[in-house]
Amino acid sequence: MGRWEPNARGRLLKAALELYGESGFEQTTVAEIAKRAGLTERTFFRHFADKREVLFAGMATMEELIVAAVANAPDRAAPIDAAIAGVEAAGAAIQEGGELPRLRAKIVATSAELQERELVKLALFAASIARELERRGVAEPAASLAAEAAIAVFRVAFDRWVDEANEQDLPRLIRESLGQLRAVTAGQ
Amino acid sequence: MGRWEPNARGRLLKAALELYGESGFEQTTVAEIAKRAGLTERTFFRHFADKREVLFAGMATMEELIVAAVANAPDRAAPIDAAIAGVEAAGAAIQEGGELPRLRAKIVATSAELQERELVKLALFAASIARELERRGVAEPAASLAAEAAIAVFRVAFDRWVDEANEQDLPRLIRESLGQLRAVTAGQ
Repeated sequence: MGRWEPNARGRLLKAALELYGESGFEQTTVAEIAKRAGLTERTFFRHFADKREVLFAGMATMEELIVAAVANAPDRAAPIDAAIAGVEAAGAAIQEGGELPRLRAKIVATSAELQERELVKLALFAASIARELERRGVAEPAASLAAEAAIAVFRVAFDRWVDEANEQDLPRLIRESLGQLRAVTAGQ
Repeated sequence: MGRWEPNARGRLLKAALELYGESGFEQTTVAEIAKRAGLTERTFFRHFADKREVLFAGMATMEELIVAAVANAPDRAAPIDAAIAGVEAAGAAIQEGGELPRLRAKIVATSAELQERELVKLALFAASIARELERRGVAEPAASLAAEAAIAVFRVAFDRWVDEANEQDLPRLIRESLGQLRAVTAGQ
């Protein structure tokens, strides 16, 4: 075992995202990431299975956050509002990540393989939201439709957040997108 | 070149789906598919790149069908109704496939790799619908939200169609799901 490195995980994550952005995901090696972070490859592999996992490492935590927010929505909240509470919680956490989530999104957009993995992640989030809505007593297909709608709202808001130069608030963009989805599905 | 075989493609498709259902997708070989269809492996590879492609072969045609239906929706149709016209056209085509699309869906559900491919396919359909809506003059993010909502409606309706023993009409299930999405997003 190597000695304990303060915040090794965070340093590796930041170094990896920077290098993927500068040299491309495919071109970057684990050796380069470790070097940039001032750590060893061995330390890298104690934290991440491979260089792809760096981009999807926060996924389990994010899922827990989403499911908890759906579970904790007020009892009387409509299914769509409970589902949106879940993706809003995700949005608030992403927002706290500052520039890194934006950088991450731009890297994912450069690779078909990474985009596939991102789609799978979002589909899993939708399934978890639907399951949690069912636990709250929402019947199918309303649970699945509310969950899918919330994920669609999240994707559109997140894309705007990534693209726009001005510093918009992601949870606010999510609520705005929900309003737009409501207008759209009402046939306006 | 082998001699021309009448409806070789259709026979291979049917044989492959039957075998995937009986023995599993992973376990089935191209040799077995060709044998069941009464054709050679060489003929199989004239029609499909590999055994996975059999399951996604109709994709380009399906996409054209969807985009054409969106383009041909009445000028005054709301974005969501134009988007739904696209997935309804897909639903009608799937319905005509009889038992094969149901069998196909059950096979896709057995494999994480095939499910990923299916997610990618649906994401591409959503992007094509959004692009076509933009061509009709729908601004973003309404175009993307209507497209994503239509795909969500399609997924839920298709899952019901696959699961339910009774012979439901898929385009009708799609319209029903749209009504349910409207109720859900209205906060009911």
